[in-house]
Amino acid sequence: MRRLPLTLLAASLALATGLASAADKATVIPQAAVKTAEQLRDKAMDDNTGYKIVESLTTEIGARIAGGPNDQRARDWAVAKFKELGYDKVYTETVTYPLWERRSEHAEIVAPFPQSLSLIALGYSAGTPKDGLTAEVVKFDSLDALKKADPASVKGKIVYVTVHMERHKDGHDYGIGSGVRVGGPVIAAKMGAAGFLLRSAGTDAHSRTPHTGVTGFRDPKDAIPAAALSNPDADQLDRVLAYGKPVKVKLDLDVGFNGSYTGANVIGEITGKKHPDQVVAIGGHLDSWDPGTGAIDDGAGVAIAMAAGKMIRDLPQRPDRTIRVIAFANEEMGLWGGRAYADKHAADVGKHQLGTESDFGARKIWRMTASVKPSAVGAIEQIAKVIEPIGVAYDAKRPGGGGSDLSQMHGKGMAALTLTQDGTDYFDYHHTANDTLDKIDPKELAQNVAVYAAFSYMAAQADGDFGSAPGAFAKDGASD
Amino acid sequence: MRRLPLTLLAASLALATGLASAADKATVIPQAAVKTAEQLRDKAMDDNTGYKIVESLTTEIGARIAGGPNDQRARDWAVAKFKELGYDKVYTETVTYPLWERRSEHAEIVAPFPQSLSLIALGYSAGTPKDGLTAEVVKFDSLDALKKADPASVKGKIVYVTVHMERHKDGHDYGIGSGVRVGGPVIAAKMGAAGFLLRSAGTDAHSRTPHTGVTGFRDPKDAIPAAALSNPDADQLDRVLAYGKPVKVKLDLDVGFNGSYTGANVIGEITGKKHPDQVVAIGGHLDSWDPGTGAIDDGAGVAIAMAAGKMIRDLPQRPDRTIRVIAFANEEMGLWGGRAYADKHAADVGKHQLGTESDFGARKIWRMTASVKPSAVGAIEQIAKVIEPIGVAYDAKRPGGGGSDLSQMHGKGMAALTLTQDGTDYFDYHHTANDTLDKIDPKELAQNVAVYAAFSYMAAQADGDFGSAPGAFAKDGASD
Repeated sequence: MRRLPLTLLAASLALATGLASAADKATVIPQAAVKTAEQLRDKAMDDNTGYKIVESLTTEIGARIAGGPNDQRARDWAVAKFKELGYDKVYTETVTYPLWERRSEHAEIVAPFPQSLSLIALGYSAGTPKDGLTAEVVKFDSLDALKKADPASVKGKIVYVTVHMERHKDGHDYGIGSGVRVGGPVIAAKMGAAGFLLRSAGTDAHSRTPHTGVTGFRDPKDAIPAAALSNPDADQLDRVLAYGKPVKVKLDLDVGFNGSYTGANVIGEITGKKHPDQVVAIGGHLDSWDPGTGAIDDGAGVAIAMAAGKMIRDLPQRPDRTIRVIAFANEEMGLWGGRAYADKHAADVGKHQLGTESDFGARKIWRMTASVKPSAVGAIEQIAKVIEPIGVAYDAKRPGGGGSDLSQMHGKGMAALTLTQDGTDYFDYHHTANDTLDKIDPKELAQNVAVYAAFSYMAAQADGDFGSAPGAFAKDGASD
Repeated sequence: MRRLPLTLLAASLALATGLASAADKATVIPQAAVKTAEQLRDKAMDDNTGYKIVESLTTEIGARIAGGPNDQRARDWAVAKFKELGYDKVYTETVTYPLWERRSEHAEIVAPFPQSLSLIALGYSAGTPKDGLTAEVVKFDSLDALKKADPASVKGKIVYVTVHMERHKDGHDYGIGSGVRVGGPVIAAKMGAAGFLLRSAGTDAHSRTPHTGVTGFRDPKDAIPAAALSNPDADQLDRVLAYGKPVKVKLDLDVGFNGSYTGANVIGEITGKKHPDQVVAIGGHLDSWDPGTGAIDDGAGVAIAMAAGKMIRDLPQRPDRTIRVIAFANEEMGLWGGRAYADKHAADVGKHQLGTESDFGARKIWRMTASVKPSAVGAIEQIAKVIEPIGVAYDAKRPGGGGSDLSQMHGKGMAALTLTQDGTDYFDYHHTANDTLDKIDPKELAQNVAVYAAFSYMAAQADGDFGSAPGAFAKDGASD
């Protein structure tokens, strides 16, 4: 067993809350596997398989909102792509969710200065009446300010919350922005508002491309019309409001719930030769929002995981354990694919060696964190050593969360990594028409594939496990 | 008379083609006027009048396509703003032009990979039939390639020309981009094409905001549907075409000619106390394209000229000559306001002391060029000396053209400057939804006002003229 520095040991003890104990036999990656992982890493850095995959998905399918006209085509594409890449086993697992549709949207300031506004309806928003919804706008500078308002002051009006997001490498301002987008409409609806607008949860201060995304509505009965203004349009509305005259806005949103839809997670596997039933789970989500072509969110994630599996598949021998690549259904409207997977596979959680999903763009990975049992921390350090030369620092003090959809499986007890990409410009494009292939640098994408291929292979070859067991990491505080 | 360096003298002789001769009495700016101009310059650099004007126009009126719903509102705004600023005389001169309307537009790739495209119809484009126009796309990498094509190969098809524009300080790639946009549809129509698409004439490689602009069509009988794809959409179409399968696109453009419209140039004057009938003519154009709010094109130009006039108006005494600020009608669809002005005032060309229009954004002016008679070059050098400390270099070797609309009056014989702004990012936003107020830096705009105030005042106070006379500069080769 490699000796753990005391601080790391303490940190890993703090992370381990499940069945594992420090007395376990240490999990170790055999040296031959480390060497192969280094070769996989170096080969992947010069390989464009990942880029070709995301190019194919975004060009041949384009936008693919869950349940929309391209949902089935995207699934067919994924099945065909897994087969083309030589995966051993390709199958689907159904996922059922409420269908929400966007048909058209338009908005305008009616008074005092008539002009159109660039906006986009939010997921699970209600539509407006056929003649539109015209109402006075009441502005709030934070969600807290809205919560504290007298409901009588917003009743029948359009609540507008304007909060600015700044760029950060770890994208942490999205917590604020998405908080307004998810929670704001629900609060406004409960207070009797007729509609909800927000300044886009995005960091592109100068682009007229509004950011969509899901609200907290899940039942048509609760929903009111809700939409996001682009940042320059929010600036404009702020300026118009500053004149101090009543501001009336008309919303025409032809969107809404329309029954339910059954799609599927699409899964490809490189079958393990020693423990075929034990899986390293990686993936991305196949659905995208509809204004862009879903290149960085999350064609890149699907491509990274598919390409990593393909790199391993091309080795002379199959790995010891199975590499399972999951292209999740409908992450965008509430982790539907991830939750369906976790529900279906909860009993197999112990068979999930290690897992994580890529869903934060296509820039370089700069940080790895892990939630594993204490006796597997040495193996994580072995992985860290292999990916450190390509720019990834291991932060032993933070938990790993498994990424968006796989956070659900982590919640069931799957040992998980988080591989954090540089998200500095991610929220410039996220959920907008500008999420297109030109935002992806093939070299940066290749670095992601290298990291996923190296860690997946090492996890598949490990002597020992990483502590996955029912409920194992219930208290690690990971959040993705 | 200040002595001219020989090279400058040669250059100015080359520029002077009118009635003036080197033997004229030299035009000189009195020292008191130079001093006042320096004070105007310094005051303007710290003044936000220009920014307040463009903020007012873009907020209270917003987009204002010529002949559209905001045309009359914009003219009312301009009249009121001139009065509010204390102009001595405010009036309008009618301008009549073909009315072209945009109602809606949509496009999609029908085969082989169905998906929507982000595009915008071009000025004077024809509309498509009610069910849209679906046709195969034929791609050309240049206008020359299109010209050389066999008409049979484009007949009934959608001609698509894809040419990249790069950023330059002087924006010179716009010559290429606008050449495709203006000339391409006409050529394609003559060859029997059913429709025309181009890669936007814009330098924003990553933005889904297509660039509109006028075509060469002037008669509905000649027009075919013509539109611009955003750069990422052109990339996408290029990728789809690269599969080598027939690519069908459907265009739904509800746009077209709709009779004629009579708008107006709106004019404000600071009346000269000595020579009220002699005018320094400055301005911008009041119309904008419709997707944005026309901040840099050309709210900024209107604001710069209006604010410069206001600075002069606030002096203790009126200037010797009149400062005439013109907010032109419908520059965008073919200099209609500029041509109407030139036609109406052709006989008064000799009364136009000097003129130029601001219509290249809101960044700092970095270069001045002039078309004046040789004996006025010394006065131009006096102007150059006053604006040099705020970053403007006088290039004596190039002619001045008077800017977009005033190029028409220059064509009649008006002595003219060109004050070139930094256009590095101008074509990122030009004619797109992203032409909004946030693109204007108040400090850079103030520098423009300083330049316009200083030169206008000096021209108004000059002892002597700059050579304006019928046909005076017919051969100076200026082009704006």
